[in-house]
Amino acid sequence: MNIKPLADRVLVKPAAAEEKTVSGIIIPDTAKEKPLKGEVVAVGKGTKDEEMVVKEGDKVLYGKYAGTEIEIDGVQHLIMRQSDILGIIG
Amino acid sequence: MNIKPLADRVLVKPAAAEEKTVSGIIIPDTAKEKPLKGEVVAVGKGTKDEEMVVKEGDKVLYGKYAGTEIEIDGVQHLIMRQSDILGIIG
Amino acid sequence: MNIKPLADRVLVKPAAAEEKTVSGIIIPDTAKEKPLKGEVVAVGKGTKDEEMVVKEGDKVLYGKYAGTEIEIDGVQHLIMRQSDILGIIG
Amino acid sequence: MNIKPLADRVLVKPAAAEEKTVSGIIIPDTAKEKPLKGEVVAVGKGTKDEEMVVKEGDKVLYGKYAGTEIEIDGVQHLIMRQSDILGIIG
Amino acid sequence: MNIKPLADRVLVKPAAAEEKTVSGIIIPDTAKEKPLKGEVVAVGKGTKDEEMVVKEGDKVLYGKYAGTEIEIDGVQHLIMRQSDILGIIG
Amino acid sequence: MNIKPLADRVLVKPAAAEEKTVSGIIIPDTAKEKPLKGEVVAVGKGTKDEEMVVKEGDKVLYGKYAGTEIEIDGVQHLIMRQSDILGIIG
Amino acid sequence: MNIKPLADRVLVKPAAAEEKTVSGIIIPDTAKEKPLKGEVVAVGKGTKDEEMVVKEGDKVLYGKYAGTEIEIDGVQHLIMRQSDILGIIG
Repeated sequence: MNIKPLADRVLVKPAAAEEKTVSGIIIPDTAKEKPLKGEVVAVGKGTKDEEMVVKEGDKVLYGKYAGTEIEIDGVQHLIMRQSDILGIIG
Repeated sequence: MNIKPLADRVLVKPAAAEEKTVSGIIIPDTAKEKPLKGEVVAVGKGTKDEEMVVKEGDKVLYGKYAGTEIEIDGVQHLIMRQSDILGIIG
Repeated sequence: MNIKPLADRVLVKPAAAEEKTVSGIIIPDTAKEKPLKGEVVAVGKGTKDEEMVVKEGDKVLYGKYAGTEIEIDGVQHLIMRQSDILGIIG
Repeated sequence: MNIKPLADRVLVKPAAAEEKTVSGIIIPDTAKEKPLKGEVVAVGKGTKDEEMVVKEGDKVLYGKYAGTEIEIDGVQHLIMRQSDILGIIG
Repeated sequence: MNIKPLADRVLVKPAAAEEKTVSGIIIPDTAKEKPLKGEVVAVGKGTKDEEMVVKEGDKVLYGKYAGTEIEIDGVQHLIMRQSDILGIIG
Repeated sequence: MNIKPLADRVLVKPAAAEEKTVSGIIIPDTAKEKPLKGEVVAVGKGTKDEEMVVKEGDKVLYGKYAGTEIEIDGVQHLIMRQSDILGIIG
Repeated sequence: MNIKPLADRVLVKPAAAEEKTVSGIIIPDTAKEKPLKGEVVAVGKGTKDEEMVVKEGDKVLYGKYAGTEIEIDGVQHLIMRQSDILGIIG
């Protein structure tokens, strides 16, 4: 089953929450909003104001409150705007 | 009877609320806003700033508080802006 | 007596409130904002940002709190912006 | 004595408050904001974003809280933006 | 000593507060915000979005809370944006 | 040591607070926000929307809450946006 | 491991907090928001509205609440928008 995100939205499969990831990023435990990691699964076509630069397969960092949860084939995903993505890990 | 949505609005017939849909999307029961599913019944002509990309017959995901309810020939529908649509299922 | 709405405003004569209309639209009794029906009586010239697409005689749906009431020759009307109109019935 | 309104402002001389006007407009007594009537006395030159369409002598409808009061030669007037004018009576 | 207002700002020397001015404008004593009178002393160069139309020597009306007070050679003045000026008296 | 302000920012060295300055500007003691004086030390390159018009050496007036404090070689300075500057003294 | 900041974002490695830095900038202890220092580690590609002017290696000043914390290979960094950067030290 497929979801095509609309406009400047991106479908992200969150990485399992872990204290220390393989790639060496540790999400510190402080009062500041902390980014989370995930993998881009599908990308919208963008808008006049927002060209899409992330692509399928990108590992991305995004804010804690970014996006809307949906469950696809039993796995939780997030649909968020590209502007909610802070950076690409690579 | 017909409704022509104005500008960037879309007329959506919501899918029956179900815990697990045939296509495998489960709406999870968490605190986050959860998207709902429906079928596009009619589409406005768009605006200078918003070109219409959804079309009649599209199965769409939209936020819980999207749109305004109207009942057409006894069936409840929603009129919402295209920007309230998160993605197309397909 | 005549009212020429300014800019992107529209003069609407509300339909009599009824539980079920001839055309089959029932205004459901729920917590969500419910649209009302009316007939367009006069249309402004639009603005640079808002071209007028409704025209005199159109039956329209609009939100419950749209517009400003005025009484013309003893009949209550509403002056609202075109963007307050959700759709055209036809 | 003369006042030249700046930009997209309009100087309006309010009509005397009356329950029913000669032209047949009755200001209904409900909870909604009700428009008032007045005559345009002077008009600004407009702005890049707002071309002036009302002109001296126009009878206009405007919202209850529109504009700033000034008294000219003993008569109370209002300076308001053209966008505060709902429509022209004629 | 000279002040050159920046951008779309105007330096105004307020008229002495008086119940009834020579030119016949009376500031009425009501709940609405009442404009005040002053003379333009210096004018900025404007901005891309705001061309300057007031000029030195203009008698102007402005809102009660417009601008920032400064005292020049012992006399209180106001620096305000041109958009705070309601109209020119003349 | 040098600070290059970014975009439309300006580095200002505040004048010593004094009741009455040499140039005759007195900061009045009222409830309204009062401008302060300083000298421009460095100027950003501006932005698409904000061309820089102040230059190094300009004596400027700015609002009481403008900018962010930094201390350079033991002297307190302010980094503020050009739009926080009310006028140039000269 | 690498992070590529998206759009107009910048990855900054904060300088160790110190009362007085080698370069002579002292962060004063007052009520106003105080800038912090750091080094730019990676820069996004910018957006239509925000061209990137900071570059890798720049020493920058930024506001106390700027950005989102992430830890890379055991060292805390910040991802912030370029507009959160006040100036470049150099």
